[in-house]
Amino acid sequence: MCRQVPVVTPSSADQPVVALVVAYDGARFSGFARQPGQSTVQGCLETSLSTVLRREVLTVGAGRTDSGVHALGQVVSFPAADELPPAEELLRSLNAMTRGMVVRSVRLARPGFSARFDALRREYRYRLSVSPVPPLFSAALAWWVKREIDIEAMRDAAALLVGEHDFRSFCVTESGLGKTTVRSVECIDIAEEHALGESFLTVRVVGNAFLHSMVRTIVGSLVEVGVGRRTPEWLGEVLAAQDRSVAGPTAPAQGLVLWSVEYADEVWLDGGSTG
Amino acid sequence: MCRQVPVVTPSSADQPVVALVVAYDGARFSGFARQPGQSTVQGCLETSLSTVLRREVLTVGAGRTDSGVHALGQVVSFPAADELPPAEELLRSLNAMTRGMVVRSVRLARPGFSARFDALRREYRYRLSVSPVPPLFSAALAWWVKREIDIEAMRDAAALLVGEHDFRSFCVTESGLGKTTVRSVECIDIAEEHALGESFLTVRVVGNAFLHSMVRTIVGSLVEVGVGRRTPEWLGEVLAAQDRSVAGPTAPAQGLVLWSVEYADEVWLDGGSTG
Repeated sequence: MCRQVPVVTPSSADQPVVALVVAYDGARFSGFARQPGQSTVQGCLETSLSTVLRREVLTVGAGRTDSGVHALGQVVSFPAADELPPAEELLRSLNAMTRGMVVRSVRLARPGFSARFDALRREYRYRLSVSPVPPLFSAALAWWVKREIDIEAMRDAAALLVGEHDFRSFCVTESGLGKTTVRSVECIDIAEEHALGESFLTVRVVGNAFLHSMVRTIVGSLVEVGVGRRTPEWLGEVLAAQDRSVAGPTAPAQGLVLWSVEYADEVWLDGGSTG
Repeated sequence: MCRQVPVVTPSSADQPVVALVVAYDGARFSGFARQPGQSTVQGCLETSLSTVLRREVLTVGAGRTDSGVHALGQVVSFPAADELPPAEELLRSLNAMTRGMVVRSVRLARPGFSARFDALRREYRYRLSVSPVPPLFSAALAWWVKREIDIEAMRDAAALLVGEHDFRSFCVTESGLGKTTVRSVECIDIAEEHALGESFLTVRVVGNAFLHSMVRTIVGSLVEVGVGRRTPEWLGEVLAAQDRSVAGPTAPAQGLVLWSVEYADEVWLDGGSTG
């Protein structure tokens, strides 16, 4: 363990790239992105990878989820560098080391692959509990709205956000000059879901990429409509305003899950599946 | 709060009876049954009820679940005694006081009703994780078997237990002399289930009543068959032996949920639903 470990950065260009599909309980981490002195998903994963692979490993994640936001299908990539242990052994080693996080699968991608920049499509799901009694088994994975929700009104409002738009009104931080806030939202579905005997409303948002807090601001705004404080048309006005202060509140982090990330088939060097 | 509170025991015979449907996280309690100096479901619920109703309340539960066993639809009854607050208010007050427990609904039953003795049918569900990677979001609600399972073999074995049998081999404690260990198991279903993005095998056991640890011993024995250590026929031999030492291990408590309890429609004085 005292030997010098070679540093391999994510930019190494001629090596295959390893992609991990990672699930984590957002409540256990100070967000995804590595930060000195904080227990973050990326930091913990890099520590585990460095121990298992006996070299320093720097990773790239598909989505920089905020503190408290969960993931079922986060994708994290790093250069293969040298011979890897067999996938099953790697999974077993990593899963024995990390608490609150599960590495679900491992794949090999072509040189130059980036979990972030090669992502074609990201899906987030937000779980709302609208029961008059609080959720129990999924309490840590849902926002208990405590009120009746008009699903049809929420659907009408959601439809106004689908397509390519400037989502500046739904972005919590000011973007730097010249950075575009145009994103393409492919669909927003709202469906009843049963999990572990409890009922939820799940808002499923699919798009190419998302601004900081964009999904949570969309959900917070949709709930304003759902509980009747705003009309569905209001969401069109929010979009047009290009001003965060006119949108609804940011929905709490605990209801949000980065559900999956999609890539072109051509990026994979193996024949397996990410799921 | 210093006034003398009247003691009303569950045996009061001429008053309507209140039935609560209660969900709880078994990990937070030392079992269901009240025990001095222990944090039990019944003890905590009685403390909350006594505070809200301003009288001592003793309850009867449909199933005395062990430490670590969860419930989604436990039913707990106690005499109505005097005027009750409206159901919504009672639910709100109780749910504000109890942690790890949710009172899901309240109903009024005819005088003499007992959540335990009037139960016609009890349903338990046991969740197995058979994935090579550990479960995350439902980790506290499943037994991670880590092995491939032959579902058909488990189903064949389960079929041998359906019907009225002496289940002495599946009862962890010696019953007192003269106490019958004959029980009627209506069905044992084994199905794949998806919850919160993860996959499980769920064993659903329905019967009139169950012996101590009976469901967990059935599941532990079925898993012996599922992983190939025993043949389906072995379960018939276990049943015939009437000896606990020949059955499989008791499956861990955390995978088990008391799912629902069924009563005759006639017991209810209101028109509502328990769910």
